[in-house]
Amino acid sequence: MVVSTISPSPVLTQDDLKKLAAYKAVEYVESGMVLGLGTGSTAYHAVNRIGELLKQGKLHNIIGIPTSKRTEEQALSLGIPLSDLDTHPVLDLAIDGADEVDTHLNLVKGRGGSLLREKMVEGACRKFVVIVDESKMVETLGGSGLAMPVEVVPFCWNFTATRLQNLFTKAGCVAKLRAADGGGKPYLTDNANYIVDLYFKGEIGDLKAASDEILRLAGVVEHGMFIDMATTVIIAGERGITVKNK
Amino acid sequence: MVVSTISPSPVLTQDDLKKLAAYKAVEYVESGMVLGLGTGSTAYHAVNRIGELLKQGKLHNIIGIPTSKRTEEQALSLGIPLSDLDTHPVLDLAIDGADEVDTHLNLVKGRGGSLLREKMVEGACRKFVVIVDESKMVETLGGSGLAMPVEVVPFCWNFTATRLQNLFTKAGCVAKLRAADGGGKPYLTDNANYIVDLYFKGEIGDLKAASDEILRLAGVVEHGMFIDMATTVIIAGERGITVKNK
Repeated sequence: MVVSTISPSPVLTQDDLKKLAAYKAVEYVESGMVLGLGTGSTAYHAVNRIGELLKQGKLHNIIGIPTSKRTEEQALSLGIPLSDLDTHPVLDLAIDGADEVDTHLNLVKGRGGSLLREKMVEGACRKFVVIVDESKMVETLGGSGLAMPVEVVPFCWNFTATRLQNLFTKAGCVAKLRAADGGGKPYLTDNANYIVDLYFKGEIGDLKAASDEILRLAGVVEHGMFIDMATTVIIAGERGITVKNK
Repeated sequence: MVVSTISPSPVLTQDDLKKLAAYKAVEYVESGMVLGLGTGSTAYHAVNRIGELLKQGKLHNIIGIPTSKRTEEQALSLGIPLSDLDTHPVLDLAIDGADEVDTHLNLVKGRGGSLLREKMVEGACRKFVVIVDESKMVETLGGSGLAMPVEVVPFCWNFTATRLQNLFTKAGCVAKLRAADGGGKPYLTDNANYIVDLYFKGEIGDLKAASDEILRLAGVVEHGMFIDMATTVIIAGERGITVKNK
């Protein structure tokens, strides 16, 4: 793991930090690449920047694979040519945000709801550059006290949520169905599934074992732990940008 | 494992054999039970028989948990009271057919398309009685040369099908998207997903390892191998009925 930092910045908002990390990540993009386009408030800046460089003629022959319907719309509005995994099963590079990054560069993703498509796209990349502001760094996954999302089929979701919670009783896990914005209805993913958010009080423990246990539950579609997937993490903080490589 | 046989029958059709196995399984049903109701041509006879015994007053206080929309309709038409896993997370007994049964009572299920709901319901049962005619018995799963189904999200299904096939190159695996009856459109499960059918020329090998590898692919929802789940298998053959217990 190589760590490099650049000089401190003046006082910046969290959104400024996200933009800084995003712009730094886009420096990894080269003309001719097939690119995974992430979803969320940080990835948004990266997609905008790629669109800008294409318009300026500084990049060309880019093909984007969006990780959500939302990013697809953003990329189309910017004139980024798009394709999909069926046509391009191997990608050169993906750039995306994360909700948590641990010291081994394992991630929690999916608070934005696109974990499944993100995992499909980012699992097919040669390089996966993650962009975060420093508030996302944790010692161990689940450590922020925020949600670790699990995508489940709507059929008997409550049964599945209880089984998920029971997997992690030692870690004080609480499972909650995610609601749609401003309503009592469940949040629907791009795949028309539900999200059960897991909240941990203690440590999850062995992440790979936890991953397999979650995936073995019939009714679970995918979870938001991205283990051994990130190749580079770019962290924007008040003291500058830090780049960590796997 | 205990094996018991009864005396030979006269010449019977395959459907007669299915009915024989189904009626034998319903002997395990007692009044007051919460019952998993299977899906498919063999389970159909069991559900009919349960409805008949309820009407005759020989069974009472039964609650059924159907494993598909089709079985739900059948049970409703027979007046069997129904519930779901959210209300009854533990079932006393489930009765269902299978597409293949190996010598360790591991199963392939889901050629009828209901593998996910079946696995959720049958994984929550104290006893799981499987009913088959003798044509379903195999040495090892995949051995019949017929499909081992995998439920996948529609998003980039072709990418997922290729990855599934690549998991089992040594076993000569071929992956095919299941089509809906009489049309070029993909078959849709009760959960609005697709089915990719895997066909094997050789042996799958370690089933639990294969299961984990399949489930780790983002885009896979569930597969049709039911490992260590059946507690009893009732096999109807021309020489009579055989009961195998785990």
